[in-house]
Amino acid sequence: MKVGNTHYRSIWHDEQTLAVSIIDQRWLPHRFVVVELHTTIDFATAIRDMWVRGAPLIGATAAWGMAKAIADDPSDTNMDATWETLHATRPTAINLRWALDRVRSHLRPLAPEQRPDVATRLAVEIADEDVEINRQIGVHGLELFRAVADKKAHGETVNILTHCNAGWLATVDWGTATSPMYHAADAGVNIHVWVNETRPRTQGALTAWELGGHGVPHTYVVDNAGGHLMMQGNVDLVIVGVDRATRNGDICNKIGTYLQALAAYDNNVPFYVALPSPTIDWTVADGVREIPIEQRDDAEVRRVLGRTGVENPDQALMTVAIPPDTSTVGNPAFDVTPARLVTGLITERGVVEASADALANLFPEFQDADSA
Amino acid sequence: MKVGNTHYRSIWHDEQTLAVSIIDQRWLPHRFVVVELHTTIDFATAIRDMWVRGAPLIGATAAWGMAKAIADDPSDTNMDATWETLHATRPTAINLRWALDRVRSHLRPLAPEQRPDVATRLAVEIADEDVEINRQIGVHGLELFRAVADKKAHGETVNILTHCNAGWLATVDWGTATSPMYHAADAGVNIHVWVNETRPRTQGALTAWELGGHGVPHTYVVDNAGGHLMMQGNVDLVIVGVDRATRNGDICNKIGTYLQALAAYDNNVPFYVALPSPTIDWTVADGVREIPIEQRDDAEVRRVLGRTGVENPDQALMTVAIPPDTSTVGNPAFDVTPARLVTGLITERGVVEASADALANLFPEFQDADSA
Repeated sequence: MKVGNTHYRSIWHDEQTLAVSIIDQRWLPHRFVVVELHTTIDFATAIRDMWVRGAPLIGATAAWGMAKAIADDPSDTNMDATWETLHATRPTAINLRWALDRVRSHLRPLAPEQRPDVATRLAVEIADEDVEINRQIGVHGLELFRAVADKKAHGETVNILTHCNAGWLATVDWGTATSPMYHAADAGVNIHVWVNETRPRTQGALTAWELGGHGVPHTYVVDNAGGHLMMQGNVDLVIVGVDRATRNGDICNKIGTYLQALAAYDNNVPFYVALPSPTIDWTVADGVREIPIEQRDDAEVRRVLGRTGVENPDQALMTVAIPPDTSTVGNPAFDVTPARLVTGLITERGVVEASADALANLFPEFQDADSA
Repeated sequence: MKVGNTHYRSIWHDEQTLAVSIIDQRWLPHRFVVVELHTTIDFATAIRDMWVRGAPLIGATAAWGMAKAIADDPSDTNMDATWETLHATRPTAINLRWALDRVRSHLRPLAPEQRPDVATRLAVEIADEDVEINRQIGVHGLELFRAVADKKAHGETVNILTHCNAGWLATVDWGTATSPMYHAADAGVNIHVWVNETRPRTQGALTAWELGGHGVPHTYVVDNAGGHLMMQGNVDLVIVGVDRATRNGDICNKIGTYLQALAAYDNNVPFYVALPSPTIDWTVADGVREIPIEQRDDAEVRRVLGRTGVENPDQALMTVAIPPDTSTVGNPAFDVTPARLVTGLITERGVVEASADALANLFPEFQDADSA
């Protein structure tokens, strides 16, 4: 999407030189820093140290890491070593392994001299597929926004609330929850987005930065505000992303999503989840009982990163500590929103209710004899 | 309550010199700074610039400001001028006006030479009354905790969740929501408190500091975590304070309280409100429709105050900015939790359900013909 007046993806290559560039997201929304990645170490560092983040973007970055390594040395030895190095960066990321396996399994039967071109084609394909899935989610989500707009007086603003960053920065382009917003903006539908800050990592600041860059009107609020905004009639629909959905339609997403869903339910505000099908875990049914919730580092809660300003005119970035050092801190990273609170799932194939039957009908190819 | 091994109130006087001391709360939880207040300007500054905060403490500070001024000059002129100066500090604070009026109306009929002693006695009385109300809330709340403990295996921890700071720092002593916690700790009931950070102003850090000082086990979490903690069975009851309750039992409290109440309701976790009777607004019935919600300064959302550390070994205090400066920011300060989500109100006269009838029965003296 747009930054300034330029369209960016979160990862891209130079058609001539094949040099791969990413945005070093550690400094967003404060600094916009583009870096080129060349060696396997470059790619591994970018993934491990979260210069890039978000499952689809991690997958695309890994695929490009394989392609660049194969261009240098197309041997089996180098291919396997690169797989190991990149896989070790964030071993629990599903998309990372999926992308690495896809590239390697395609290359393995090929003669070494054929591999570089095919590897590059696969990296491009993996990125483009993600863009296409998200574009489709945007097309279907836009219809929901239009339906709300049609019920309002002519031109009245459609108010949307979102949590965390399910934006283009976490994918290759469009984002998931943000894709309908960008489609709406591009189509001239009058929207305004309430952006939840999303403590502890304040990814709402990324969402605000994204939306601002693309010219989408938005207001940044603390996570506590959503219930009040809905109660006051200031939210027409909620749309969030998802880290992992179950085959029943339970939604595991950033901590706090469940609270927003409860408020939506209590105020008859539709609550939608933008759900690319690769995020559905068909092996899991009950999200509350079956999905283990990651406890992340205390430091994320204890400290906040921001720009110094008033006291420090160079606007250096700095973290500050909020609670007493002597207090214990807890940091559950995700929560589960039961399907009963979800109005609908916006997938690349259309919008369906959050239920096992609806998902099975929409994705029959994933229904094998065991899970049916 | 205790800080280190010393018992503090949030405002106190020297019995010999009558010097009045407060804690300059602007620097908590990072620095513990005690200051003496002498002149009317001192008192006005302390209230206006939020060295002291919380309705009961503001009232007590104002009463002491009047007492000190009258000790210097007991004339009507000085009494009225002091009233004006102190009242102008935070004109919307109900307790401020109530305390100033109470002192002035007692002094007005008296000869100037009688006034200093009476004014001092009134200031002491106002502070002591607040302490006694909060102590009673603690006694009644402790019974609720004991009832939970009795249903558990011997000695198993009672887990409590609280939002914002309804602590001794906001009152003269004990606090409201925290009073049952301190009573439990003093009585040897095994409790643990989940302390919500409470963005934007992160008053949870004050609560964590208070509880730590008094030796109450606690864990600081972001506001997003409460729903997950309740869903996982890690919360036995929620207890919060209140800025203003309606005669129907609706609760206007710090933004985000409503979300925690929804989560408690959805998970069958009892949700209690510590409610000193002066906080009940008998003129208001429907909190959602009738209570206007204050929109506070954007800067509270944009910036967070904390200790620098890693980069700055002297641990200077600094604010950092989180969202892009170009993003719009919203800052509703309170929300309303409807009585239907409240399990019970813990008042100084006992625990009652959140309903017009229950409140009217408990406080018959406030039921005049109009509102009955």
